[in-house]
Amino acid sequence: MVVVMNLTAGTEQINAVQQRLEQFGFEIHIIRGVNRLVIGAVGDRRIISSLGLEAMPGVEKIVPIMKPFKLVSRESKGQSSLIKVKNVIIGGDDVVVIAGPCAVESREQLLTAARMVRQAGAVILRGGAFKPRTSPYSFQGLEEEGLKLLAEASAETGLVTVTEIIDEASLELARDYVDMIQVGARNMQNFRLLRAVGRSGKPVLLKRGLSATIEEWLMAAEYVISEGNENVVLCERGIRTFETATRNTLDLSAVPVVKGQSHLPVIVDPSHATGERKLVAPMSMAALAAGADGLLIEVHPEPDKALSDGPQSLTPEDFSSLMAELRRLAPAIGRRIR
Amino acid sequence: MVVVMNLTAGTEQINAVQQRLEQFGFEIHIIRGVNRLVIGAVGDRRIISSLGLEAMPGVEKIVPIMKPFKLVSRESKGQSSLIKVKNVIIGGDDVVVIAGPCAVESREQLLTAARMVRQAGAVILRGGAFKPRTSPYSFQGLEEEGLKLLAEASAETGLVTVTEIIDEASLELARDYVDMIQVGARNMQNFRLLRAVGRSGKPVLLKRGLSATIEEWLMAAEYVISEGNENVVLCERGIRTFETATRNTLDLSAVPVVKGQSHLPVIVDPSHATGERKLVAPMSMAALAAGADGLLIEVHPEPDKALSDGPQSLTPEDFSSLMAELRRLAPAIGRRIR
Amino acid sequence: MVVVMNLTAGTEQINAVQQRLEQFGFEIHIIRGVNRLVIGAVGDRRIISSLGLEAMPGVEKIVPIMKPFKLVSRESKGQSSLIKVKNVIIGGDDVVVIAGPCAVESREQLLTAARMVRQAGAVILRGGAFKPRTSPYSFQGLEEEGLKLLAEASAETGLVTVTEIIDEASLELARDYVDMIQVGARNMQNFRLLRAVGRSGKPVLLKRGLSATIEEWLMAAEYVISEGNENVVLCERGIRTFETATRNTLDLSAVPVVKGQSHLPVIVDPSHATGERKLVAPMSMAALAAGADGLLIEVHPEPDKALSDGPQSLTPEDFSSLMAELRRLAPAIGRRIR
Amino acid sequence: MVVVMNLTAGTEQINAVQQRLEQFGFEIHIIRGVNRLVIGAVGDRRIISSLGLEAMPGVEKIVPIMKPFKLVSRESKGQSSLIKVKNVIIGGDDVVVIAGPCAVESREQLLTAARMVRQAGAVILRGGAFKPRTSPYSFQGLEEEGLKLLAEASAETGLVTVTEIIDEASLELARDYVDMIQVGARNMQNFRLLRAVGRSGKPVLLKRGLSATIEEWLMAAEYVISEGNENVVLCERGIRTFETATRNTLDLSAVPVVKGQSHLPVIVDPSHATGERKLVAPMSMAALAAGADGLLIEVHPEPDKALSDGPQSLTPEDFSSLMAELRRLAPAIGRRIR
Repeated sequence: MVVVMNLTAGTEQINAVQQRLEQFGFEIHIIRGVNRLVIGAVGDRRIISSLGLEAMPGVEKIVPIMKPFKLVSRESKGQSSLIKVKNVIIGGDDVVVIAGPCAVESREQLLTAARMVRQAGAVILRGGAFKPRTSPYSFQGLEEEGLKLLAEASAETGLVTVTEIIDEASLELARDYVDMIQVGARNMQNFRLLRAVGRSGKPVLLKRGLSATIEEWLMAAEYVISEGNENVVLCERGIRTFETATRNTLDLSAVPVVKGQSHLPVIVDPSHATGERKLVAPMSMAALAAGADGLLIEVHPEPDKALSDGPQSLTPEDFSSLMAELRRLAPAIGRRIR
Repeated sequence: MVVVMNLTAGTEQINAVQQRLEQFGFEIHIIRGVNRLVIGAVGDRRIISSLGLEAMPGVEKIVPIMKPFKLVSRESKGQSSLIKVKNVIIGGDDVVVIAGPCAVESREQLLTAARMVRQAGAVILRGGAFKPRTSPYSFQGLEEEGLKLLAEASAETGLVTVTEIIDEASLELARDYVDMIQVGARNMQNFRLLRAVGRSGKPVLLKRGLSATIEEWLMAAEYVISEGNENVVLCERGIRTFETATRNTLDLSAVPVVKGQSHLPVIVDPSHATGERKLVAPMSMAALAAGADGLLIEVHPEPDKALSDGPQSLTPEDFSSLMAELRRLAPAIGRRIR
Repeated sequence: MVVVMNLTAGTEQINAVQQRLEQFGFEIHIIRGVNRLVIGAVGDRRIISSLGLEAMPGVEKIVPIMKPFKLVSRESKGQSSLIKVKNVIIGGDDVVVIAGPCAVESREQLLTAARMVRQAGAVILRGGAFKPRTSPYSFQGLEEEGLKLLAEASAETGLVTVTEIIDEASLELARDYVDMIQVGARNMQNFRLLRAVGRSGKPVLLKRGLSATIEEWLMAAEYVISEGNENVVLCERGIRTFETATRNTLDLSAVPVVKGQSHLPVIVDPSHATGERKLVAPMSMAALAAGADGLLIEVHPEPDKALSDGPQSLTPEDFSSLMAELRRLAPAIGRRIR
Repeated sequence: MVVVMNLTAGTEQINAVQQRLEQFGFEIHIIRGVNRLVIGAVGDRRIISSLGLEAMPGVEKIVPIMKPFKLVSRESKGQSSLIKVKNVIIGGDDVVVIAGPCAVESREQLLTAARMVRQAGAVILRGGAFKPRTSPYSFQGLEEEGLKLLAEASAETGLVTVTEIIDEASLELARDYVDMIQVGARNMQNFRLLRAVGRSGKPVLLKRGLSATIEEWLMAAEYVISEGNENVVLCERGIRTFETATRNTLDLSAVPVVKGQSHLPVIVDPSHATGERKLVAPMSMAALAAGADGLLIEVHPEPDKALSDGPQSLTPEDFSSLMAELRRLAPAIGRRIR
């Protein structure tokens, strides 16, 4: 950490900062610049925020040098993590495709979808039982009934399942029915929920918040892992920007950035990111080429009858074509799709 | 609502859209444009998202005309709402100042802060017992112990109290100790929590999410009110933008925009918005001049020893000076500070 | 266009709007909604902004239905445009790679770079002679001397050349020395310059402004084409968002969005978008997979001695490896690299 | 400056960085951290970007400590600058109100506007003769004819005048007709134009670019001053964010931030920032309370007939009411309006 003192800081103020730092075990280096005095401090980055340095008289600003996360960092573990969800491995050479409807709407809808995406090559089935909706007047999900249908679809098709949970109660319910737990974008900084998910030990699909920096996203993963659960898969799903031509702005650069900073696998959700069916295929291709370990794609047997997110859902036919394209792409970039 | 059909939409597709709309009770107006056919549809805006129109073949886009909220809207209730928190009224001529430390840290810290902010003219005491922190290694709050201290400070000083809750468990705990419940920026779209807060009947301080549009913020208030709790006060606290000179970008235009669209009172939090002590006074003045009904200001007896957000906390002396400035300003804009 | 009248608009105000619209040749459709009167108006979208409708009493808002651009739109010309820059065609099956140093720094630097990128497979040479720099104390380019070196490099290697112009004077100079003119991000809405570039007739590489919407970008192209110059190639180079892990946020979704709305080719600049050498290769791959017609890549013989943008420049060796990867990718997505 | 070496940097790489720094006159301090070696370097911040350090092997990142601007900084000149435009002084106790139409449209329109804004208390007349418009099909300004009308209006009313220039040719024309030159948001980083404006010696109103950071804005002012013209007034006019309820997001915190970092005066344009007439008055009040030295307000005799920006223009009556409100506000914040 570097502490920049302001132009008018006096000796007494400089000494006070120095003492505070030494008291917390930091090693001090004083650098006298042209206009300012700068204090280099070597020690534990994670306690900086408890020191109150920025509020001390004479301090202009604090510049952290180290990243604030530890367990998720590539430095703490050089090798890329392989996350197992039953028989599926995320983070290896195989690109993992997760597909299914936005919301579980009925037995027929889910089972049809499950059979079709399995047929086309998906290995994990998605389906929402608890839907966070911006309007209180919109469909809010089938809840436990939806979870049961996911379990039934899994039993029939052999697909592994993932579903979003929205609080501790839904987490409690879901853990018995599904194989992987999704933490949605709106809950990425719901820190209590992150801890609970950490304690559950279940594999976690952690979506990036729609205005979260990559650093904040990795800190959210740090919360989960700090409870002893290392089975975290990150999912880029678009960030909020000024551009309105797409629902969100898919930040594909986040894929190589995350892979540089962390050992965790990262997948991409082109459906929520773009909000438009026609854009799902090109952005799926781009995600793979950028190095993503998998895709999360919304598929609905009849998108125009979907109770949620119909405009961005692929038909089963669209999805089959996309899988064919992805199969052509994968070997050209050193990956496989089973 | 206006449904724009694409250039190549055929008669069959147009008829299908028309039938879907009529089936849901919409009245239809066909407009043939130069290049496109447009369908004007008159009916209930709140069910648009259930119609799946955007996913129907031939539909280019849907343009909603009405706002998606109803209970919070100025149109549903012309007169501005006055929200009572015990003996304090928010939304009237009196500007309401809420002050206190970011986090409750100890009995002495809180009681000192409470006495000092009361002395200077604050009417509501703030203090966090449950702290959502980006790092799992930071101070997370005193929890129930903190709530008890708030109740004690209230009993001693006569100040009304507000505290942030972060899930249903903390809501359950807090409702017996404090007078007003705060929903933080990160939980603004935690829809289950909004419903629970709605059922609690307690006055609510609803912060704007850091990347929430004004429309989404009002929809969050709609969730609370739709459960029968009309005691909602909105709080602007800065949005996330590309600018890094301040912690967030305080969107003061939101104050008159919200007052035009809704009957609910709106206050401003210049401490979290700017993240810097020196900016709190000018932005407090600006907030009042923009028409805010109150302010939420962080004050700490010893900011450089604060466990959270020290750099943006005012000292009691700074706060007294600011209150004096605000008292000079209020009558010039037709408001009062008691 | 749809004109939404506000709740309290009277007959007189409605009539005034109707008359204004009819006077400008619009055909009128009145729709009486539940709470509002809405006027559908069919006519020339391009003159809406001259009507002053939004300022008329009783008008709540104007909702345009048509896109504001015409000459650049896919509707005006169904077939994708092929832009010829001497013997190079942009927009066809061949992916076009443009490479070279950020700034022309010396004869040796440019000729070395030119030979190396040609060797690796680039077909157009880039090099800046006029550098827009945020600091007045930074290197500002060799100006005409730089243009001469570009011409020399072209003569020696047979590479076609492109350089950025920054005002009408530099345009005048550059047109005699180079084959294609680049309009940089900061000048994307320098409308006089766009007109001058349009009049010049030279092929244009039009970069997206760093906070420009896709619609504004296409309107900038409309300026150029409206002067009779149809040789426009669009270049996505990242937009400004809250994320600071990369220099800008590369908006790859813009590639399929633009291709849906316009007949113009679009290429991608991963160097400026990411600002970091390690990210250039994965984002180049992703750009191709998303459907880009080409790439603009910074290559410098000795990046650590570059006077501008060294950290994002590839070494010639990096560039050769990347070309090899791109050659493996191209056939898997139905493209070619010569 | 602090140079952070990466985890695996070897002695040779560290020596190379050290030599490069010393060769450019920097004084070196080596700090060995827990995981990294950090090099503190004391010297001229302005040449950092020429050193190519970030591209050197082993370097992880560069952290600048000093601000990149010098002439505009509060550190270079402690006292606030007073900018004289004929008999008007900007930056003193008097709040300066600049008003007039967006575009000069006709002799009658401009003279009527000039008389009315003078009557209400404006001291500078604004009016655009060169209009940068996003559509090539919109009104582009009266050009020299408009400048002549501004000169005539000035002669009749005694008002000082300001107009926007858009390139060197319009600057040449304008300097003989008006008293102050405006550089618009889209030209804030048109560095050649900034230099030309600097050489002109005319007082300059420098608008913030719609996606410019405060640092970039001050660097633009540095360009002007580095040519010897110290008469720069900054103008905040809203930045581009995800929020669409207002045309831009007025960043009022920028006012105290700029005043802390620079000696230059700063005014606010609530008309362009909000894009809506009803929001102009509250945001004008807020701007003053935040410490702005003046306001730039669009006033049109008949907003609904305006050829540009009618929806955000005040009528002369609105403007008179606003001036009355501002006159009540000013003394309460220690300012005056003549």
